[in-house]
Amino acid sequence: MPAFRFADRMLAQLDELGRISESPDYLCRTFLTPEHRAAHETVAQWMREAGMEVEHDSAGNLVGRYAGATPDAPVLMSGSHLDTVRNAGKYDGMLGVIAPLACVADLHRRGVRLPHTIEVVGFANEEGTRFGASMAGSRAIAGTFDPAMLETKDKQGVSMGEAYRAFGLDPAQVGSCARRPGSIAAFMELHIEQGPVLENKGLALGVVTAISGARRIRVEITGLAGHAGTVPMGQRQDALVAAAEIVTYVETRCTGTETLVGTVGMMEALPGAMNVIPGKAVFSLDIRAAEDSVRDAAADDVFAEIARVCARRNVEHKLTELYRSTATPCHPGLMDAAEAAIKTQGVPTMRLPSGAGHDAATLAPLCPVAMIFMRCTRGISHNPLEAVLAEDVELATATLLHFIENFHPVN
Amino acid sequence: MPAFRFADRMLAQLDELGRISESPDYLCRTFLTPEHRAAHETVAQWMREAGMEVEHDSAGNLVGRYAGATPDAPVLMSGSHLDTVRNAGKYDGMLGVIAPLACVADLHRRGVRLPHTIEVVGFANEEGTRFGASMAGSRAIAGTFDPAMLETKDKQGVSMGEAYRAFGLDPAQVGSCARRPGSIAAFMELHIEQGPVLENKGLALGVVTAISGARRIRVEITGLAGHAGTVPMGQRQDALVAAAEIVTYVETRCTGTETLVGTVGMMEALPGAMNVIPGKAVFSLDIRAAEDSVRDAAADDVFAEIARVCARRNVEHKLTELYRSTATPCHPGLMDAAEAAIKTQGVPTMRLPSGAGHDAATLAPLCPVAMIFMRCTRGISHNPLEAVLAEDVELATATLLHFIENFHPVN
Repeated sequence: MPAFRFADRMLAQLDELGRISESPDYLCRTFLTPEHRAAHETVAQWMREAGMEVEHDSAGNLVGRYAGATPDAPVLMSGSHLDTVRNAGKYDGMLGVIAPLACVADLHRRGVRLPHTIEVVGFANEEGTRFGASMAGSRAIAGTFDPAMLETKDKQGVSMGEAYRAFGLDPAQVGSCARRPGSIAAFMELHIEQGPVLENKGLALGVVTAISGARRIRVEITGLAGHAGTVPMGQRQDALVAAAEIVTYVETRCTGTETLVGTVGMMEALPGAMNVIPGKAVFSLDIRAAEDSVRDAAADDVFAEIARVCARRNVEHKLTELYRSTATPCHPGLMDAAEAAIKTQGVPTMRLPSGAGHDAATLAPLCPVAMIFMRCTRGISHNPLEAVLAEDVELATATLLHFIENFHPVN
Repeated sequence: MPAFRFADRMLAQLDELGRISESPDYLCRTFLTPEHRAAHETVAQWMREAGMEVEHDSAGNLVGRYAGATPDAPVLMSGSHLDTVRNAGKYDGMLGVIAPLACVADLHRRGVRLPHTIEVVGFANEEGTRFGASMAGSRAIAGTFDPAMLETKDKQGVSMGEAYRAFGLDPAQVGSCARRPGSIAAFMELHIEQGPVLENKGLALGVVTAISGARRIRVEITGLAGHAGTVPMGQRQDALVAAAEIVTYVETRCTGTETLVGTVGMMEALPGAMNVIPGKAVFSLDIRAAEDSVRDAAADDVFAEIARVCARRNVEHKLTELYRSTATPCHPGLMDAAEAAIKTQGVPTMRLPSGAGHDAATLAPLCPVAMIFMRCTRGISHNPLEAVLAEDVELATATLLHFIENFHPVN
């Protein structure tokens, strides 16, 4: 006798998916591999059992369709990704596929047809683990797939185009699964938060306000290497001390502004010997906010500080922007509907931004999007320690089912 | 017709020595290699031409002896090292062997015997490039050779003991070249400054006051890794920002106190991804001063600041001392004699500490020691860009000859 209406079966399914891995030692399931295929076939089988028609689309996505009551019923799409990072947890992405699947299975069991069609999508290659280029699956559906992506290569030198061909798909046709604008009424993605906010507030579920836009910049500071013993303090051009000043500034500048975060994740001092003054420091800068103007204002201030610090210290600096994504606001009407669905379960909730990127952001050009975040233990993700509570899985799925059953297209 | 009395020939010799290398691409000549032997044989030949008796001692040092006027004449020893770092310059160490050799050659040419014996030593393994363990040659002469050094291994897994045997020396006898306390009247080492102080002051030569003692500490800070997008600023335990605060403190604390220097030369943020908050930061700390009490007071303040920063930021820290050497004051009487010798050449001079370690410091337990620093271009050393002026080489050698000719044992 299961303790939960949904969660027992779902957690078993998530465990089963979590065992489909390229490594026996940890979870790693990347794009266009035999494990990609195996995971999609496993989920396809569950979709069929839930009364869905299944399609493996031209981009490598898995799409299950539970038709609405009428042939021209609007389409509500829900899903997330089935690929993983290296040494991954088993909830990131997969929860957002298994939960709408459980909802459809429940509707199917009850013989319910809704006034809208439900599509459950397992997106391919959200993480970009294998080729670097991410979001290939949702880009293809959104109509924004860039064929240049096909030239990206994995560590073995295999291009994404070659991998598509080996997988049995035509690289020239990847974008043909693009949906017609207006053909999807809405997209809803359930995802673990991957951060500590909900847990720290004692909340199981939150409504995402926006998927933050990010900028990633490589900063290189060039001073003058020297002997750690023989160059007096006042005569140094130490690149690392300049970098350190900037690291602390990034924290100060990004603290206190809602949704704004700034991180230096990589730092290298060169030549990197204990007895040599660093002549060069190279570090990364990642700045995100729910609004691009907030992020850009912070970035501008950081750049100005870099220039000030480097001028004062007589060292050179070079900035290279590596990545930029635009902030994606979630649809207000969908946010309200999600919040109402959570409140129906009798639990409090909050609104929060998503600092991480998600397929939902990629689909925003196609249709209104929304996301529900579910608490995960200590906010840990991209890690085998990723963990969730069965109660939360149950609550999230009941919420999603309520959202699906009460869905009305929004403007 | 040479432009200089000493420098033309010496610079040609230094060029010739600089070509004896384990690599065709750069200068690298490490302990107990065929190149070690070749360099010592080359210099030995020059020593013989200068009228010296030559010994290859039990530790792999090269010793040339120019006997004094009487059999029990006191011994003035002068020299430096003949081994190099990887990708070295050709003056570090070698200048301090070739210069006293040039002085003896001049005495020999003039048929002068002094009231003291002159020993010119080319020390083996000052740098520690091959086995890590440094100063093996001067330690053996000083009587402080630690047989545990024989267990250190090179990158190929060959121990220093095995290398001694392959070189034709008995590892059990390395220490037998130790000189009897009182048998050496003084040791004088001429060395390039390896720093910018003399050049910045427009001086060719300086008198070293002390060889700074150093402490090297590995600092490991452990916070909590997290997603750069999903963990709000106020909820982070970012190990790198803590490290950055400490790096700037090290600079602040070590600035403004004479002879004190503090350097963070290595810095690593882990896991080291652009979109991950560093859960760990590992860095090195190198603190030196001409007086141990000055150095230790600074180190204590840095340790206290590390504790404060880590407590405030709720991160852990671990300190591991990797190396500690005691500051070695130079002998005041020898310093005065060196200064007088420089002034005889009609040039101004200054006194300055040596922040780098030298064989002179290792010999201090055996006899009074002194050093003369010679300006090198931009203070660059341990680098093929190491450069000197011929005028300075001439001046330094004339100074050293004056010092040698006018030497009187000191107390």
